[in-house]
Amino acid sequence: MKHNIALIVSYDGTAYSGFQSQPNQTTIQGKLTAAIESITNHEVILHGSGRTDAGVHSHGQVVSFQTNRLLAEERWPFALNGFLPDDIRVRRAIEVPQDFHARYSVVEKTYRYYVTNSSVPNVLLRHMQYHFPRTFDEIEMRRAAQVLEGTHDFRAFCAKRSLKENNVRTIYNCDIHKIENGYCFELRGNGFLHNMVRIIVGTLLRVAEGKKSAEWVREVLENGNRTSAAPTVPAYGLQLWSVKYDLFNSE
Amino acid sequence: MKHNIALIVSYDGTAYSGFQSQPNQTTIQGKLTAAIESITNHEVILHGSGRTDAGVHSHGQVVSFQTNRLLAEERWPFALNGFLPDDIRVRRAIEVPQDFHARYSVVEKTYRYYVTNSSVPNVLLRHMQYHFPRTFDEIEMRRAAQVLEGTHDFRAFCAKRSLKENNVRTIYNCDIHKIENGYCFELRGNGFLHNMVRIIVGTLLRVAEGKKSAEWVREVLENGNRTSAAPTVPAYGLQLWSVKYDLFNSE
Repeated sequence: MKHNIALIVSYDGTAYSGFQSQPNQTTIQGKLTAAIESITNHEVILHGSGRTDAGVHSHGQVVSFQTNRLLAEERWPFALNGFLPDDIRVRRAIEVPQDFHARYSVVEKTYRYYVTNSSVPNVLLRHMQYHFPRTFDEIEMRRAAQVLEGTHDFRAFCAKRSLKENNVRTIYNCDIHKIENGYCFELRGNGFLHNMVRIIVGTLLRVAEGKKSAEWVREVLENGNRTSAAPTVPAYGLQLWSVKYDLFNSE
Repeated sequence: MKHNIALIVSYDGTAYSGFQSQPNQTTIQGKLTAAIESITNHEVILHGSGRTDAGVHSHGQVVSFQTNRLLAEERWPFALNGFLPDDIRVRRAIEVPQDFHARYSVVEKTYRYYVTNSSVPNVLLRHMQYHFPRTFDEIEMRRAAQVLEGTHDFRAFCAKRSLKENNVRTIYNCDIHKIENGYCFELRGNGFLHNMVRIIVGTLLRVAEGKKSAEWVREVLENGNRTSAAPTVPAYGLQLWSVKYDLFNSE
């Protein structure tokens, strides 16, 4: 009998060339597949909820694979963590129905982007918080964030080489939480284009520093031109926070 | 005219053999002294509020030095950070009276020790939170923490090789704050013996996991025997949080 196993995986993306396996590159998918195969003793095909770029972190990435190996749900994390480097941890395993697929069954995703907003960066969090030592107009920025909520064609907020035929996505929430010496941007949506969160955050920071207005963000969204939006902020501030399925939420 | 400059310095201790300069070792004091001398163009003698061991971090370490170089207070951090590696940051500089001394003028110090208390460690904080995946009896542990507050001979909580003639210190507060998936131990006192915070935390964790009682902690304190207390917990969970002087608090 085949078992379909979903794993909730956190990782520090600093040392990796992204999630997806590539020849001669150290990747999250490569490390996970090797660890799983050490236990299953047969080849597995690992599906992720989606890719994360080089340097991007994860709190709640979800992967799934089929195996003949029978192991209790609570045993999988301990067994796998023994084979994984200490910057990748399996937080939980769930035996899911045969028709569950880490990517196709996604209902909703949440990303977080962390920004340090003080004159000097926090040394202990320098690998996970983008240092933005400028003025921060929170009110206008929140107004701009609201412009982005809802269903829109987000082609202006997508890496050009990755544009698809359909670039319409829905952002349910674009929240900004105050944290110690900074801000956490939390975006929840039904799907995200390539670099979308990092371009949105860069654009909102333009508004925060007073160089642009919320009205400008509306214009960028409407004209659909990538070059109108702000540059992509660095990967290391980003975390794939959670993935929601009908069966569970990986938060 | 001589200027006496105090610096508030944060660092990630992971890559260093501790604060204090040692031949052929990479140290915080060594890096700071080199950066300062790049600006002063004369040799400086750098005093720290105290040493931190290899691997220990700092949020608010304080150092001081004398110089002929005239530079506005707000210019020092930017100038120095340009010469420092990115795991050491000068947060603030204060021109202090001639009789200020980073070590002898200390009034009070605060240390924090971070513990992750979940089955799986937090990958992004693994360099600064000790992973303790066991049961956690918060009530009995808080009772034990209260036993340690006040003025006591702390010889049972000192690395044996570092015992002094006088091992009496005063702990004003031994607080334990709940954080996401763990706890932060915050100890405020008039001074700390070598490894004292790490031995106290190890001892309190023995109580937390139910192996010992608050009454046992009282016995250890009274019998004064280092071997009665628990082992020293790892350096990487510890941060010198702040140093208080009559003139300022480095928090």
